[in-house]
Order: sequence, then structure tokens, then C-alpha cells
Amino acid sequence: MPINRAGSTSVDVPRGLAGVVVTHTELGDVRGLEGFYHYRQYSAVELAQTRGFEDVWHLMINGGLPDAAQRSAFTARTARLRWLPDEVRAVLPAIARASGRSGPLSGLRTALSLLGAREGFLPVYDIDADRRRDDTIAATAAVPTLVTALHRLARGLEPVEPREDLSYAANYLYMLTGAEPDDARARAVEQYLISTIDHGFNASTFSARVITSTGADVASALAGAIGALSGPLHGGAPSRALDTLDAIGTPDRIDTWIRERVLAGERIMGFGHPVYRTEDPRSRMLRGVAQRFGGPLVDFAIEVERRVEAILAELKPGRELHTNVEFYAGVVMELCGIPREMFTPTFAAGRVVGWSANILEQAQDPKIIRPAARYVGPTPPVAVPLMA
Amino acid sequence: MPINRAGSTSVDVPRGLAGVVVTHTELGDVRGLEGFYHYRQYSAVELAQTRGFEDVWHLMINGGLPDAAQRSAFTARTARLRWLPDEVRAVLPAIARASGRSGPLSGLRTALSLLGAREGFLPVYDIDADRRRDDTIAATAAVPTLVTALHRLARGLEPVEPREDLSYAANYLYMLTGAEPDDARARAVEQYLISTIDHGFNASTFSARVITSTGADVASALAGAIGALSGPLHGGAPSRALDTLDAIGTPDRIDTWIRERVLAGERIMGFGHPVYRTEDPRSRMLRGVAQRFGGPLVDFAIEVERRVEAILAELKPGRELHTNVEFYAGVVMELCGIPREMFTPTFAAGRVVGWSANILEQAQDPKIIRPAARYVGPTPPVAVPLMA
Repeated sequence: MPINRAGSTSVDVPRGLAGVVVTHTELGDVRGLEGFYHYRQYSAVELAQTRGFEDVWHLMINGGLPDAAQRSAFTARTARLRWLPDEVRAVLPAIARASGRSGPLSGLRTALSLLGAREGFLPVYDIDADRRRDDTIAATAAVPTLVTALHRLARGLEPVEPREDLSYAANYLYMLTGAEPDDARARAVEQYLISTIDHGFNASTFSARVITSTGADVASALAGAIGALSGPLHGGAPSRALDTLDAIGTPDRIDTWIRERVLAGERIMGFGHPVYRTEDPRSRMLRGVAQRFGGPLVDFAIEVERRVEAILAELKPGRELHTNVEFYAGVVMELCGIPREMFTPTFAAGRVVGWSANILEQAQDPKIIRPAARYVGPTPPVAVPLMA
Repeated sequence: MPINRAGSTSVDVPRGLAGVVVTHTELGDVRGLEGFYHYRQYSAVELAQTRGFEDVWHLMINGGLPDAAQRSAFTARTARLRWLPDEVRAVLPAIARASGRSGPLSGLRTALSLLGAREGFLPVYDIDADRRRDDTIAATAAVPTLVTALHRLARGLEPVEPREDLSYAANYLYMLTGAEPDDARARAVEQYLISTIDHGFNASTFSARVITSTGADVASALAGAIGALSGPLHGGAPSRALDTLDAIGTPDRIDTWIRERVLAGERIMGFGHPVYRTEDPRSRMLRGVAQRFGGPLVDFAIEVERRVEAILAELKPGRELHTNVEFYAGVVMELCGIPREMFTPTFAAGRVVGWSANILEQAQDPKIIRPAARYVGPTPPVAVPLMA
């Protein structure tokens, strides 16, 4: 370890901090070789198959699954928090108007920042763990109301008031469309939302933790995370995979379309993942969810998946390349009537629970995350030239 | 390097990434042992002593100091961008009302997020370097207008419209107070703003770079940076040092007050820095700025500095502890009529140039910053229990 000029040791690590262990966590992990990921000690897929969103939300921020009484209290409490303060609601039309060109996540970023201020969120190091958790719950409960209201306002529609008698997922679909969803669609979206809550130390989660490590409030950390999620490299864009299906169009065009792309060295959106070396467990689960609906889109998606894997095995032998979460997530959301521009905001409505849990965990460690950079410009000091 | 379960190597590094080199930079550095910091190849203090804010802004985002024609064009262009779009201006009263309890930085975080959306900022990887720079200039030029308007609105005052004929610093004071500042005050604030533009790889700068590394837009990165700056561990709080002067009250109480705190093991706000092992060069420069004004506050501050250093040398021999940037920054801002709650927003009005330069540098490297975490909870998978 070389000694830098500040007198402390400096450490060179892989570019982009790839593989660099920043923190210990009890929240979960991804095992890329096994195609397995977990929330705390439970398989995330098993949770999505057996539990409701509120149960997993409770697990992530409180450390354990709720019993019946806890579930009932937590569900009632979070349902009441779906209502927005008047001061925030009044500003949403203006935020929706202003955010038209930058996309719906920029509206959510602004609205959540405003909500946190209005709710008087304080620096996490100035409040106790219960108050911090309350702040994350208030923010999370409001996300579906905010994103659906902003979406509707941008289209000249009135926002739909939340309903407390519906589950988080069902109420999300209800506020989005104005119609109470059937159980199949509500459950499908719920399973998608559960599956997106957390996934290793992704860049939006890391952003939330860096901001929290300064002691900043929950809204600062969440606004930063939403910003990071909006970046095209983050990967939270299930609409891109559906665009691939659209571009192929019909089953007879699959082979030609895919071969052309692969031979040109292009990426096929919806395929491949930086961590999974086997099937993405989220993709496998969401394929099952899609198959419960059936129909031409699902048949087509499965055929595309089958053909892409076969062609890749032929043209790029030895390279494991499978569908990623985007592929069937897009199909499931399309089947549930979610418009394509709302795919990433829907992802955010699940991931906000993961961000919250990471914020709460980070806030227990009063150590700022502050790495270093190596200066590589011309050697200073060069005398400042006289003003021209 | 152990192999983690994803098949990639993992690296353990110091807590909080201390000393971990995340990136190379041409923007500047801090030499803690020498008490020296620089912007590109120039001493930051020398720049503050010889140049205007617009020159250093130009240096940071364009790579070089402007010549006369460039200065004139850049100054005129940035001055025009002080005006807010009507859609943003109309929402400021609501943002100011909502942000009363969370402090002025939460208002700036919201307003800058809204401005970026309104201006149609796009993901940095979807636009060229010129357009990215334009976005940072639009955001930076608006920061003084936003923070001063939010401050005045929160106090029931009308915002003051920007003036294009004043320098960035003079116009800042003008919009804050409603009166054109004298040259001495305008220059003092300008020197303070220049001195805060950048300072190594601090947590707000790192937040901006992590968010940018996903390809997110400039407003996402700046909103994240403002959030990080609002954390009490970030250190951007010059008002705390002035609170120390207030608490001591009079010169005769200095020794008792300081000895009590030091013997109790308490930190004296305004003293000590994690990197500087000698005098903080910003503190030294700002003491000089304060001495140009003179008067009882400056005399008192210098006496407190002298006595604290003497007492610390006596009680904690061998430990170099000097005033940090907060100490004389607070004195200078007080002398210039900046209200205490606006000290950190004023800091942000300088630092936004450093964030911008870091965003532009990061955007040239299309590699996501995505570290890892080590799971340390109970071994999964534990079967999900049946619902209670």
C-alpha cells in the first residue's frame, strides 16, 4: 500500500469498485453461480411465491416476517400512509408538467424530495432507529400514490385516491388504472414487486448508503437512489426487453432478427446479466407468473427465449446467456395493463423497500463512506497566469 | 483475493472506503501534510486571491482559465441563466412552505430536481459532452436564484430577481438581501465561494459520481450531492463554528470554556480536519479575508483561535489541531450579512461547480461504480415459515 500525500495509506482496487466489499450486510445477497438470491435468510423467490408484499416489506425493515397481529397492524398503518399531505398533492400537477421531457423517475425524485421535507425528515444520526424506520415507511407508502398521480396528471387525468382496503400491489394497479384489478393481476404485480425489492449491492442501493453515511435524511438518500436508478447502466428498464419482442414482431422472424444482431455483436435486450452465470431466478419465477395468464404474448416470449438461447449456444458456444429479470418482468407488466413508461417506476415501487432497509442498516454505522481519487493532471502548483 | 460466490474476486478494504482509490482525476487534490490543495494545476488559494468566481468555474468545467473573450462570453452566458423558468418559479413558494422543518438544503434538493426535469436534462450517456456541460451550467447558474428565493419565501419576503450586471458572488448577496453589496463584501464572498468549489473526493462529490456512473442525468447527480451535503458528517456546516464563538461569549471566558470541553473529551467545532495535519489553507486564507474587515468579531475569533491552539498544545501535546474551513468561513459570512441558516446553502453555491466538474469527468468513463457487500446474516435458504 503506497502512502499518499495526506499521510494515510491508499489502496488501488478494480475499476468501478467491482468486487470491492464496502460493508457487511444482513439484508441479503446474490449467488451468481447458483442462480440464487435471498432476502435475509430466505429465498427471495420463495418469499414471492408464498408471501404478500407487506410481509416482505416488514421482513426487510424490521428483521423478521410478521405474525398475524403484526401483519394486520403493519398493513393498516402503511395503508393509511398512502394519502399524501395536501401541500404535496397541490404541487404534483406542476411537477408532472415540468417532468414531461425527463421521464417519470425525475418526477418521483422531485416529489419524494418534497414529501420528505414536508414530513420533516431529519438527519438519520439526529433521530433514533424507530423514527428512521417511520420515515422510510412514510416514504415507501407514498411512492405508489406519487408515481401513479404523476403519470395520470401528465396524461391529463385526475389522480385516483388511494384505497386502504387493498393490498399495496392491488392499490398500485387501482391508482394507476382507476379500476380495481382482478386477483390474478394484483397477485402477479405483487410477486414482481417482491422480486425487485433487493438484489445485491446495486448502484442505486449504494448511492442511498453513501448519502446516508453522511447522516443525511431518508429523503436525501431515496432521491439519490431514484436518480441512480434512472441511469441507463443501472439496468432497471424492463421496457427494453418488450421493445425487443415488438421489434421481432412475429415468430417466423425470430431467427433472422436474432442472428443478425448476434453476428453484428449487438446486445439482445432482456438477455444476459453481469452476475448470474446461470438462469436468473427472477426470470424463471416471472415466466411462471406469465404462464398463469397464457396467451399469444406469453407464447411468443417463450419462443423467443428458446430460440435466442439455441442461437447463442450455436454462435457463441460456452457462453451462458439467459433471459434476465427484464424479459419476463416486461411481459408480466404488459399482461397486467401497466403502460410501458411506468415499468421502471413500478420497479422503483418495489425497490424502495430495499433502499429503505439499506438506509436503516447503514444508519447504524456512524462511519462516512468517503473514498479517494488519484490526481493525474499536470503537477501543481503552476503559477496562476496574470488575467488576460 | 478470495473468490466470491458470483465467481468474481472480492477485495476487502478499509471501512468507509478510506484511502481506497476509486478513480483518477484531473480536477485537483488535497495534500494534507503540506496544507495545500489545488484545482487542476493551480493552487486553489492562489486562484481565490487572484481570480473571479467565473474564471475558476470556467477552469473547472472547461479545463483551462478563460482568456478575455472567453471570460466575457462565459460571464454573459451564465448571467442570463440566472433567471428561472416560470414553471419552476411558480412552485418555489410551495417548496419553501414544505421545507420549513427539514432545512434549506432540502428545498434546494427539490427545486434543483424540478429544474433539471423542466430543462429536459437527459441521461449523460445519451448526450454529448457539450450538452452535459450546458446542463451543469444551467443548474449551477440557477443555484443562487433558487436558494435565495427559497430563503426569502420562507420568511414571507418576495424573491429578488437576479441582476445580470453583477458577478456571480455579488448577485448572490444581492438576491439574498435585496441590496447591492459593496465591493469588499462581494469580493469576500467570492473568495469564500472559490475556496469551497472542490476539496478532494468528499462524500457529496462521490455521491454525484456514483449516480453519474449509472448514466443518470445531471440533476439526479446534483440532487444526490445536495442530499449528501446535508448530512452532519459531511462537514459543510460553517454555522457550527460561529455557534462556538457565541457560546464562549467574551474573551475572559475563553480559557475556562475551552478547558472544560477538551477535558471532557468534546470536539471543539471549527477545529480539526480529517486530512490536514497542518493549518487548513482555506482557514488561513479566510482569516486574511476577515482581517480586511477587522472589528470585534474578527479580533475575538483570532483570540479564540490563539487560545484554543495553546490549550490543545498543553493538554494534548503532539496533536496538531488547527482551525478548519468552518471557523473563518462562518466569520466571513457573518461579516457579509449572510444569515446563519444560509451558510451551508452558500457553501453549496460554490461546491456545485466542483460537483459539476466531477460529473463531467465521470461521464467520460462509461463504467458503473458498483461495489459489493458481504452477507453476514443467518445462512440461507431457511424455509419460509407458513403464514401465521
